[in-house]
Amino acid sequence: MPNLRNLVLPNWALWGVEEHRAPCLSPSSSPSSPPPMSSLPKPNGNGNGRSRWRSFLQNLGRVTLITIAGTGGTLYYFAQKDRHPGTQLPPDPSKKTVVVLGSGWGATSFLKTLDTDEYNVVVVSPHNYFLFTPLLPSCAVGTVSLRSIIQPIRYVTRFKKRQVTVIEAEAKEVDPVNKTVTFHDNSVIKGEVVSTTMPYDYLVYAVGAETQTFGIPGVKENACYMKELGDAEKFRENMMDCIETAAFPGQSDKEIDRLLHMVVVGGGPTGVELSGELHDFLVDDLKYWYPELASRLRITLIEALPTVLPMFSKQLISYTESTFKENKIDILTKTMVKEIKPNAVVVQKEDKSLVEIPFGLLVWAGGNKARSITVDLMKALGAAQAGKRGLAVNDHLEVVGAEGSIWALGDCTSTSYAPTAQVASQQGGYLARQFVQMAKKDALERDLQVLRAGAGSEGGIEDAKKVEGALERMRKFAPFSYSHQGSLAYIGSDKAIADLPIFGQGNLATGGVATYLFWRSAYISTLFSLRNRVLVSTDWLATKLFGRDVSRE
Amino acid sequence: MPNLRNLVLPNWALWGVEEHRAPCLSPSSSPSSPPPMSSLPKPNGNGNGRSRWRSFLQNLGRVTLITIAGTGGTLYYFAQKDRHPGTQLPPDPSKKTVVVLGSGWGATSFLKTLDTDEYNVVVVSPHNYFLFTPLLPSCAVGTVSLRSIIQPIRYVTRFKKRQVTVIEAEAKEVDPVNKTVTFHDNSVIKGEVVSTTMPYDYLVYAVGAETQTFGIPGVKENACYMKELGDAEKFRENMMDCIETAAFPGQSDKEIDRLLHMVVVGGGPTGVELSGELHDFLVDDLKYWYPELASRLRITLIEALPTVLPMFSKQLISYTESTFKENKIDILTKTMVKEIKPNAVVVQKEDKSLVEIPFGLLVWAGGNKARSITVDLMKALGAAQAGKRGLAVNDHLEVVGAEGSIWALGDCTSTSYAPTAQVASQQGGYLARQFVQMAKKDALERDLQVLRAGAGSEGGIEDAKKVEGALERMRKFAPFSYSHQGSLAYIGSDKAIADLPIFGQGNLATGGVATYLFWRSAYISTLFSLRNRVLVSTDWLATKLFGRDVSRE
Repeated sequence: MPNLRNLVLPNWALWGVEEHRAPCLSPSSSPSSPPPMSSLPKPNGNGNGRSRWRSFLQNLGRVTLITIAGTGGTLYYFAQKDRHPGTQLPPDPSKKTVVVLGSGWGATSFLKTLDTDEYNVVVVSPHNYFLFTPLLPSCAVGTVSLRSIIQPIRYVTRFKKRQVTVIEAEAKEVDPVNKTVTFHDNSVIKGEVVSTTMPYDYLVYAVGAETQTFGIPGVKENACYMKELGDAEKFRENMMDCIETAAFPGQSDKEIDRLLHMVVVGGGPTGVELSGELHDFLVDDLKYWYPELASRLRITLIEALPTVLPMFSKQLISYTESTFKENKIDILTKTMVKEIKPNAVVVQKEDKSLVEIPFGLLVWAGGNKARSITVDLMKALGAAQAGKRGLAVNDHLEVVGAEGSIWALGDCTSTSYAPTAQVASQQGGYLARQFVQMAKKDALERDLQVLRAGAGSEGGIEDAKKVEGALERMRKFAPFSYSHQGSLAYIGSDKAIADLPIFGQGNLATGGVATYLFWRSAYISTLFSLRNRVLVSTDWLATKLFGRDVSRE
Repeated sequence: MPNLRNLVLPNWALWGVEEHRAPCLSPSSSPSSPPPMSSLPKPNGNGNGRSRWRSFLQNLGRVTLITIAGTGGTLYYFAQKDRHPGTQLPPDPSKKTVVVLGSGWGATSFLKTLDTDEYNVVVVSPHNYFLFTPLLPSCAVGTVSLRSIIQPIRYVTRFKKRQVTVIEAEAKEVDPVNKTVTFHDNSVIKGEVVSTTMPYDYLVYAVGAETQTFGIPGVKENACYMKELGDAEKFRENMMDCIETAAFPGQSDKEIDRLLHMVVVGGGPTGVELSGELHDFLVDDLKYWYPELASRLRITLIEALPTVLPMFSKQLISYTESTFKENKIDILTKTMVKEIKPNAVVVQKEDKSLVEIPFGLLVWAGGNKARSITVDLMKALGAAQAGKRGLAVNDHLEVVGAEGSIWALGDCTSTSYAPTAQVASQQGGYLARQFVQMAKKDALERDLQVLRAGAGSEGGIEDAKKVEGALERMRKFAPFSYSHQGSLAYIGSDKAIADLPIFGQGNLATGGVATYLFWRSAYISTLFSLRNRVLVSTDWLATKLFGRDVSRE
């Protein structure tokens, strides 16, 4: 008989044990009214631990059951809800038309927050899905699978009050004067119509940026990128290809070493995370399937600046560097890439000496550069946009030179903020709220006109004044302000680093395995949908269980 | 207090409830010796059902716990075992070299069964993985994901006693006279050495076949296949592309109908399963994300023969046809494809009239044709192989004209058997056992020579006779005989059909949802590895929960 006083169990468990005994302790009393603790018989030493353990197990079991049934049911309910959108209002000609260019962090968060009741919305993007970019490096080595980190954009738009038109096409030109946007169908399968020009009242410009190559020769031809989903796919295929080619009989030692040298250019989060993931892939998987080659695979990270991860604190940078040292990942800082040849990269060391480093696969995780459509738009907007690296916007995200008709957010703008997902999605949310405000404002202005028209009566003027007041207050819509939630990066061998601002004052810099778990939960919680959350968790579990796939498909 | 006599619970449960009460019923008796039933107090009506239910829950919970812990532990144990192969014996120059061409059903089942202690084995295949072809149609619409149905070939070879060399390359030529095979590295990333010629003692030829196009113009250019993993990927991308292109603004109704017409040519299992999966994708997913288009998507299955699935019983054929009718899948039998244009297929009806059918996507699920390397090998072997559709083999799977040095199995051979996975894998297993036998035989022959050499002594002659006897018996290695395990096919909307031979006599022909569950379990059990089984089950679950992904990646 368990000594309930000593029993270290939560209340429910205690209750469970209680209830259960109640009848046989005092048959008269109904189970619903358990006797006071004191009335319980003294514990007998013999079998005490055993039955205590048993009742603990029983109650744990009960809770497990309830948990499984509960979570299972909830999961099913929400999953079904998520895949069965209802009917939507038809487009309303009396409402303004908002064209959104892009389906990345900025555009998606705008669409999520926007009240489409007030607008006719058209989304134009070369991809019909949103990509959770932070997990792209994990995806590149197969820690998570491609489709776990993407979600169709219709997953947002189909749940909006009013129908939203989604068009898979690449925007080619924006005409800020006539307020039109022209886009092409760049996909493989084409219909009769492949290009069209569409008028807009408001344009939300969130086309992102393309990878900056600084005009270094050979980057486009001989390097992989790590920006789109296709890049991760290509990387994975080429990496396995390098290994299989190194395993081809008769390959010279020199050639094997070249093929097994993976070079990552760019010491930002992407480059660092990719190097870390590559290391994991090597020690968790390749080691077992390619024992003769794995020991020869080398990873090198090249960065032009004096340090990797400049956005992190000194302490975390050195933690990353020491972790990489343990993991035999070479870091070459203050090293500038001068040229990328098919099988080797030419770099300039700090001492200005040129060195040629042979590689099997090189990933270019460089910075951002304005897309050609953005450059054209800037030209069209003239002086106001001259000499900028991206679209200049005011503190309400209005494009300078096209205020009131074009808003820009994310990587296509040139602001004081870093080109991160965090900034873009905050801007998207902000802009959506601003649009709701604008709709209200339009309504009030219509009212005002009506009132002014009938402006003879006392009341009319009164009301008009009221409305004017309301409009006055409304014009002062707060400018966009970015609140930094912190920076995270995975650095390999189940370690991550985090720079977290605490209540505005001071930073919490932390690294290690605990931080890795935080990194995971943070990512899970920021993932797009329940589907993504479940799939990524499953992928992580499957990778722990079965390892990563080394098939070259 | 539960009335234990009425308690409908298994023994362990009874025991659980028993044990639990024991101490408070008779504090003196130790829990290990519960009192006899009779000694239990009479039930009191009040709370009887409730506490019975409670104890049932408790015990169910306990079992759930144990089950979870048990399965979880077992799964983890075997998963870890599967990904951590041990050390292997080095190649042994004194042993014969077996070169295996291919990594499909035949080659893989040969490798699984072969005792590599007796041979030095080299595997040459353009893919470094095994593909579970029966699930390719499911994969093509995203019911299961690509990597769930493939498994690296090293997953077999790394667990063999002796090291096996795996080379990712395409065999280009077999020289049956000099006993050499030449292969090229056809991948994207190439090393210094891209081609090599390797000698063999025994060649296991399992290169499969390529898709038969019957010389019909436009097949290669304008059709998708459904044979390799890449085909499923391409199909999925093109299918979503058709839908997105149909959604492009300004497309004419005629053009939309064309783009949304999916045509499958070939009424075999692949064609039928693909049509069924397409229908599921349409009603489970597309309907919700593309409401304006889904209703216009049409599926047509074209077959030259008078009926689809000729290998199944009449009853099941008509069941399939009626199911397809319900699902609005058009079946055109006795219809011959004459030409495939970029956007339309020209067919000849039974009445010899030519009709042009516009399509957005056409899948060619036609028959098999010998690969060029096979044709060349047949030429090299001369008259014996003349006029055959594949390699002629004897009943021991020896290639006619190259007996004792080349064995062929699977789709590259011309036998009386259907070109199915079932046949190929049975042949692979048979051949592996034959090879073990051959190794034994070689050993005996060596002994015999030794004995004959020292043939003066009585005993010597005696022993020689024994060995000769043993050799005699051994020469009569049973010829290959195929045992048909039955045919299965999925036909859409959670229905499958099965033709199962029962103990040799008569067939069990069954269709419907129950059969579908059987289909699933049969596939799960025939999957390559624990990893594949778990991943495919998870995929099926995820598809039921979240539906299929409509992203075009």
